[in-house]
Amino acid sequence: MKQLNLSEWLLTQLNLGKFPARMPNHRRVYEAIRRAITEQVLPSGARLPSTRSLSEDLNVSRNTILAAFEQLLDEGYVAAQTGSGTYVNYNQPEDFGKANHQPINKSAGKTILENAANNVLSQRGLAAIHKLGDYQFGHEVQPFTPTEDDYSRFPLALWRRLLNRQWRAINPTLLDSSHDGGYLPLRKAIADYLRVSRAVNLTVDQVLITSGTQQSIDLCARLLADHNDIAWVENPCYWAARRVLEINGLKLHAVPVDAEGMAPSTKDFRIKPKLIYTSPSHQYPKGMVMSYGRRRLLLDYAQNSNAWIIEDDYDSEFRFEGRPISSLQGMDTHGRVLYLGTFSKVMYPGIRLGYVVVPPQLVDDFKSGLYELQRPGQVVIQAAMADFIEEGHFVSHIRRLKQTYSERRRLLQAALAPVAEAGARLSPVDSGLHLVVEFDANIDDVKIAELAAEQGLRVYPLSNYCLGEYREKGLIIGYAYAATEHITHYGNVLADVIQTALRK
Amino acid sequence: MKQLNLSEWLLTQLNLGKFPARMPNHRRVYEAIRRAITEQVLPSGARLPSTRSLSEDLNVSRNTILAAFEQLLDEGYVAAQTGSGTYVNYNQPEDFGKANHQPINKSAGKTILENAANNVLSQRGLAAIHKLGDYQFGHEVQPFTPTEDDYSRFPLALWRRLLNRQWRAINPTLLDSSHDGGYLPLRKAIADYLRVSRAVNLTVDQVLITSGTQQSIDLCARLLADHNDIAWVENPCYWAARRVLEINGLKLHAVPVDAEGMAPSTKDFRIKPKLIYTSPSHQYPKGMVMSYGRRRLLLDYAQNSNAWIIEDDYDSEFRFEGRPISSLQGMDTHGRVLYLGTFSKVMYPGIRLGYVVVPPQLVDDFKSGLYELQRPGQVVIQAAMADFIEEGHFVSHIRRLKQTYSERRRLLQAALAPVAEAGARLSPVDSGLHLVVEFDANIDDVKIAELAAEQGLRVYPLSNYCLGEYREKGLIIGYAYAATEHITHYGNVLADVIQTALRK
Repeated sequence: MKQLNLSEWLLTQLNLGKFPARMPNHRRVYEAIRRAITEQVLPSGARLPSTRSLSEDLNVSRNTILAAFEQLLDEGYVAAQTGSGTYVNYNQPEDFGKANHQPINKSAGKTILENAANNVLSQRGLAAIHKLGDYQFGHEVQPFTPTEDDYSRFPLALWRRLLNRQWRAINPTLLDSSHDGGYLPLRKAIADYLRVSRAVNLTVDQVLITSGTQQSIDLCARLLADHNDIAWVENPCYWAARRVLEINGLKLHAVPVDAEGMAPSTKDFRIKPKLIYTSPSHQYPKGMVMSYGRRRLLLDYAQNSNAWIIEDDYDSEFRFEGRPISSLQGMDTHGRVLYLGTFSKVMYPGIRLGYVVVPPQLVDDFKSGLYELQRPGQVVIQAAMADFIEEGHFVSHIRRLKQTYSERRRLLQAALAPVAEAGARLSPVDSGLHLVVEFDANIDDVKIAELAAEQGLRVYPLSNYCLGEYREKGLIIGYAYAATEHITHYGNVLADVIQTALRK
Repeated sequence: MKQLNLSEWLLTQLNLGKFPARMPNHRRVYEAIRRAITEQVLPSGARLPSTRSLSEDLNVSRNTILAAFEQLLDEGYVAAQTGSGTYVNYNQPEDFGKANHQPINKSAGKTILENAANNVLSQRGLAAIHKLGDYQFGHEVQPFTPTEDDYSRFPLALWRRLLNRQWRAINPTLLDSSHDGGYLPLRKAIADYLRVSRAVNLTVDQVLITSGTQQSIDLCARLLADHNDIAWVENPCYWAARRVLEINGLKLHAVPVDAEGMAPSTKDFRIKPKLIYTSPSHQYPKGMVMSYGRRRLLLDYAQNSNAWIIEDDYDSEFRFEGRPISSLQGMDTHGRVLYLGTFSKVMYPGIRLGYVVVPPQLVDDFKSGLYELQRPGQVVIQAAMADFIEEGHFVSHIRRLKQTYSERRRLLQAALAPVAEAGARLSPVDSGLHLVVEFDANIDDVKIAELAAEQGLRVYPLSNYCLGEYREKGLIIGYAYAATEHITHYGNVLADVIQTALRK
């Protein structure tokens, strides 16, 4: 390429207005020449024009050209040979797979589309983003969307004050990563709360702060199980947990649930798990409490087969009648249970604070693993959370939420009562943030969820929570998010949808 | 067990003072009976005493006993048979592996110790918490600790004001999880910054907010590679990245680096990677900039072999001389580069904000994967970060930090200059937050790091960053954290340690 041609090409680039207004001239020249090299207008080995001639052609100062050249040299785009000028420095690799070699100046857009046509994700990546069942909405929240909470009730002004207090008296360690399992006063506050409210048997040291339940499960799966190890899950099961276990290469073995909770049989016992994931206080999604016998059975089995039990106590704060259910962890005398909790339901989802209570013999390893794999931080928020608990706001906020949610539950139960006439069964459990309406096995619950969606009501089909061939039919209906004054109206609409569908 | 004996046992429990002061009586009674069942003082099938007789024996009201029984019933510890009383409900499982059956009332402490004697972690868990080399300190920060930044310079009052502004005018969506790749104004601010400062070629949609570099690498490794796929890493390499790749089951292939950066040869090209992890702007830890030729080579090779390049631009803000180095991503015309950045070095480590710029064809899948696998949140902090950038504080804070760090670098270089007399080589790179002193191959750099530690100076041996048999020798010396007024003193001490050791 002749020098004049290069200058003309560079001038086009400089005049295209592609550069941000405040970009200095030397940077524009650098960028234009870099593109000439990148797009092979200037091939490897080509000699650059002299700085003097470029300065004249482009009508910029010679210092500007010099600055641009210097940066190109710095970055290795060009090499200087003493006395003979500056050359494009491009080494063609020798050992490329020639078969699928694409010329590098081929239209990027086309190649990208071609790639998109293949599966570009890994197998596990595809599984991770796979929606369970065909039935999905986006993230739009509607009155009955399960797993959505009404964080409009959250005491914002108070929370802001607690955060501010921490920021005002900031201790530099609050700005660092969290090296040692989390902010100690928060771990103490959690330990005290769990000991009294959940009969968890623990010392402060066993409490590790994570950025939520996903991260807690991830940590357990990675530190305690290897690729291709088996994890027992309940069937049906909380699907986000299932996803995290699967992406970690665990093979899921689905154990049925009955009225007493997870119900492993002789057949299941032969498939020795490394991990057992369970929600004994309030089975997700069906809601039953695991019986004492089953608890004992699981604990003994875990001890005898060297398995770990992950107890996900995700919404135990919201039990409306009777007294709180004790944790499985509190019955564990052999250190086989990892107890998980989260603040995202009581506080707000974006807070990203959860915890895992690990058996004493795992404390040190889990502290290291947590730091090495997740580099936790947000210690200021941990500190405000500690204050929130210690000053009693946590317990009183739960009390207020329980009043609200229990009223919403009552209204929804009343509105849905007529579905019994059409053969549906309303789950009798009295805790949590959702109801389950169960159908007979021949009913297409996905279809009914779609019909509800047409009415603007997003509910989830129970069959989507099931693994393998087994398909229970029903709907998961959240009520935490639905405004109390509208719940009867929406509940009636939903009841109509269900009744009409079942009578067809 | 006779009734009186049970009552006595329960009384002991109730009087042990094990219960929190505010725990109500019915809860204490419940807890004591639960323990009796758990610890098999009351075996399965045993009949509980009548509520009346327990009420008398324990000297509490009958309602208290009734409430405790009700909860035991709720939780399935006991079952009621009409007319014949209340029984412990404990089903012994039939199919336990009898061989390693432990009696459940065996001392918990002993079993836990026995477990600890085995390896309780998974193989990958052990690898994850494994310290590289034998040489380790805790997390105590000392003047020359690499990867520590001086966040005492962070404009706290300003940051508190920006956070407060967000909290005052809080929009409920800021409290939710982040469903769609992060807070849009922050993604815009990052896109503008990267376009101008790093020559990254992108639209806003390609920027996804993560909770840091660990999480960004994790996401890429999971979504783009499967267990047993190959990842190329530089040798030496950033060890936290290596750890995240390994825990995801990737097989690491170490590619040497030379003065032009990552230097794959014909031998390497035959070991086709799924991922290529590299730090082209400032190789970690050695600091060289990747040449244009190598960049071209890597991009072409990635395109031809369907590999993805993970470009970790971890500290590109801190380049003290010359102009900023352009990103590898900006040269990529085929959508093969994922560009990673972090705010933890410019802001503070605990902020846990990073980003990944993905090729256009991966945007939707990465948004789903990010949400499903990590449930990101902390949107209020994302919003404050957006303001921090948009209002110009980010750029001016970087400018101030660069002045501070470049002064510290200069002082440390001067203090360490004498080590050249003993045969060590001071790395000439002029960016980043650490210096490298290189030794000859026969020198024990771990030993020298230990000698420095005895002087209260925590530096890292270069050999610990190497993979496989290959061992470069030297020290990684951070200066970001060292106070300017003390750096010469500490630098002299370190220079002495090095010279003395090398002369032995």
